[in-house]
Amino acid sequence: MEDLIRFGEKLFDELEIAVYRSRNVSASVELNEISMASTRSGAVTVIRGIKDKRLGIAIVDSDEPERIREAIEQAAKMSKLNGRDERWVSLPEPGKYRERQRSNYELKEASPDILVEKLLHGIKLAREKDSNAVVAGGAGGVSWEERHIINSHGVDVFQEGGAAYVYFELVGRKEGVVTPGIFDFDARRDLNLDVEGTVERAVQKVKWAYSVKASRNEDVPVILGPWAIAELFSYALLPAFSGERVVKETTPLAGKIGEKIASDVLTIYDDPFHPLSLEPAIADGEGVPTRKNVLIEEGTFRGFVWDNYWARVYGTESTGNGKRDLGSGGINIGFHNVVIENGKRSLEDLIAEIDRGYLVDGLQGAHSSNPDNGNFAVTANPAFLIEDGEVKGASVFLIAGNVYELLKQASEVTGEQVVIPFMTTMIAPHVKFENVKIAGK
Amino acid sequence: MEDLIRFGEKLFDELEIAVYRSRNVSASVELNEISMASTRSGAVTVIRGIKDKRLGIAIVDSDEPERIREAIEQAAKMSKLNGRDERWVSLPEPGKYRERQRSNYELKEASPDILVEKLLHGIKLAREKDSNAVVAGGAGGVSWEERHIINSHGVDVFQEGGAAYVYFELVGRKEGVVTPGIFDFDARRDLNLDVEGTVERAVQKVKWAYSVKASRNEDVPVILGPWAIAELFSYALLPAFSGERVVKETTPLAGKIGEKIASDVLTIYDDPFHPLSLEPAIADGEGVPTRKNVLIEEGTFRGFVWDNYWARVYGTESTGNGKRDLGSGGINIGFHNVVIENGKRSLEDLIAEIDRGYLVDGLQGAHSSNPDNGNFAVTANPAFLIEDGEVKGASVFLIAGNVYELLKQASEVTGEQVVIPFMTTMIAPHVKFENVKIAGK
Repeated sequence: MEDLIRFGEKLFDELEIAVYRSRNVSASVELNEISMASTRSGAVTVIRGIKDKRLGIAIVDSDEPERIREAIEQAAKMSKLNGRDERWVSLPEPGKYRERQRSNYELKEASPDILVEKLLHGIKLAREKDSNAVVAGGAGGVSWEERHIINSHGVDVFQEGGAAYVYFELVGRKEGVVTPGIFDFDARRDLNLDVEGTVERAVQKVKWAYSVKASRNEDVPVILGPWAIAELFSYALLPAFSGERVVKETTPLAGKIGEKIASDVLTIYDDPFHPLSLEPAIADGEGVPTRKNVLIEEGTFRGFVWDNYWARVYGTESTGNGKRDLGSGGINIGFHNVVIENGKRSLEDLIAEIDRGYLVDGLQGAHSSNPDNGNFAVTANPAFLIEDGEVKGASVFLIAGNVYELLKQASEVTGEQVVIPFMTTMIAPHVKFENVKIAGK
Repeated sequence: MEDLIRFGEKLFDELEIAVYRSRNVSASVELNEISMASTRSGAVTVIRGIKDKRLGIAIVDSDEPERIREAIEQAAKMSKLNGRDERWVSLPEPGKYRERQRSNYELKEASPDILVEKLLHGIKLAREKDSNAVVAGGAGGVSWEERHIINSHGVDVFQEGGAAYVYFELVGRKEGVVTPGIFDFDARRDLNLDVEGTVERAVQKVKWAYSVKASRNEDVPVILGPWAIAELFSYALLPAFSGERVVKETTPLAGKIGEKIASDVLTIYDDPFHPLSLEPAIADGEGVPTRKNVLIEEGTFRGFVWDNYWARVYGTESTGNGKRDLGSGGINIGFHNVVIENGKRSLEDLIAEIDRGYLVDGLQGAHSSNPDNGNFAVTANPAFLIEDGEVKGASVFLIAGNVYELLKQASEVTGEQVVIPFMTTMIAPHVKFENVKIAGK
């Protein structure tokens, strides 16, 4: 790799070579059967070179030196043809990294067999626990990735690691009621996936869903589950913390550092080193050290996250939030592992105190939220009616609102947290919000 | 491969080995610059084996015999664990194929350089023709695929071929007006991509869009362009022709063969052998010969399309419409190349006769259409107001309706057709519809 950097330095003022090797095994479920098992692996190298403030990016699906050399030449040709980016400052310098966490090598060599076994176990359990339930879908996967980021300023970081996940989607049919698809999952950095717990939670929700309750227009306490929180925040809230949006003036948080934007119970930060994290990265996609970046501390907005480019355009420092997009080869501002700090009490404690309200498991339509102002309009489904401290059945309703108003209505977070391995990786508890305006459907 | 079939026959009653090798080069544009050049290639093998009516599917990203052998074993393990599919009849038998068309080997070895050159030429042309236009996005690509489908009943088909595409998205800014993103493209089975024509058409539409015209509620003639037609039909109409939906009773076309469902001017068929086709396949994803399947002939509904599985469940024959899903490894019913037969006159002739109406270039929201009944609700954007036989400016409006009502309102199709390389591959002219109810926005 050093040789390739030397080679590239003849063509560029500065350059970066990022090599990604990955292996993924997976298996899927369709209608109570294993529908597929798959093993895939590969390597991709991205070259980012700058000559005279002209950028060239080339991608090649190989880690062989000869192919990387060709990609460097390709990037050099491109940079010659492109115009100058007058805002370009430079690629990152080496930084001080936290101590690497131990990798779990059993994830590197996992066979699809272990996933097939776990999925079959889950299907069997689900049908034993509820003979009216069908495992409509599901999947398990184990991924392993090795990344090597090296640049002509001396950045040279190698990282490796993996994660495993499983999910099941159940549909129950009983006495003329067909439940919505009920979903639960587990994800972790070892193969001890909690199939029993996952199925248990899904079956419980299916049981609730056999009793259909009409919804109505009202202002009630609503508990959003981790998956619902992840959906809403990923689209309506988290983009607002991007430094690129500060520069482009498209974040409603501009100029608000130190201001109260949420209830005291909410502390939110990004940190790949949380114990439940699926990927304890020491460096981001361009080799900048990762760290704990507090976004909201007891309701107070603490700051934005940056990659190297936008930080230098704005005159600040990267917070280690440059994420590589392997499709375009470029770096975007993103999150490693967004944590909503947990509280003390259990979900059961929270439910027990509610006279009338809802527990929301999933949201539909969150992707249409507007991160420029925080407005959203979503359908809560699956959602469960709580009356007299107990879940009484399933409902569907609409919530249209603004995420910043909602943040101020948060009244408590649960002690249990789960990691959500989809979209933006998040670690979230259940969060209770007071007086949420809902529209019956 | 014969050896591998022999090996698999010891484990299965019947099996299929499908090998896909591909190579893709591409380059992208962002804000008047080349943002990326990429070269990717790979191989994927899918095993589908059946033992005692129990199905096993395994996917491996390799075409090496040793890895394929492991995948066969993996699929065998899975089939043992799965339940019986009592509806299973068998994999396809060999059929009679049409004569293979000549492959264009220049596509197999194309370098990203040629794409970079074409994209730069397009950017330069666009800016020369309209100094207020920005090439917001764009891309060019050349793909090559080799497929080998072999099964234990003697099916053994090898096919290879490639295609190239280019698209540009322009945004114009003039006198306070910012146009919507205006898109045009070319795709073909050689490298002579028509960059000039593509840019010319896009610049023309940007010019129109500088003049913004309010829309209102009215019933008017509307010409849908090829891209708009492809969006609407892909989601609202084409799924209804699937034989799987006949079995599952989710198509509104059930029992209507021979009935008039559209205006006389509409003839629609699926045939990979059309001269503009990007992929003249002689066999589908499971080795069944492709053919011309007429869907609508001068307004009359002629029939459904089938893959091997659903055809045998229903008691009919595959029409050669089994398409491989490389994600799941399975076969779904799909189309090779849907052709809307062209008419005689030009788009200009049609526009010249309209006193007041619209030309619609793109639709938003078509993916939310309901193929169970044909209902749709879309935003026409970009769309252009026609008055007194001329395009006067750009408008945005809503069309909510039913695709089967719309089919009856078709009054003319243009002589020119273009191939749309995205979603379902289609070859479409412009189609004029009378008295379309639109809602101003």
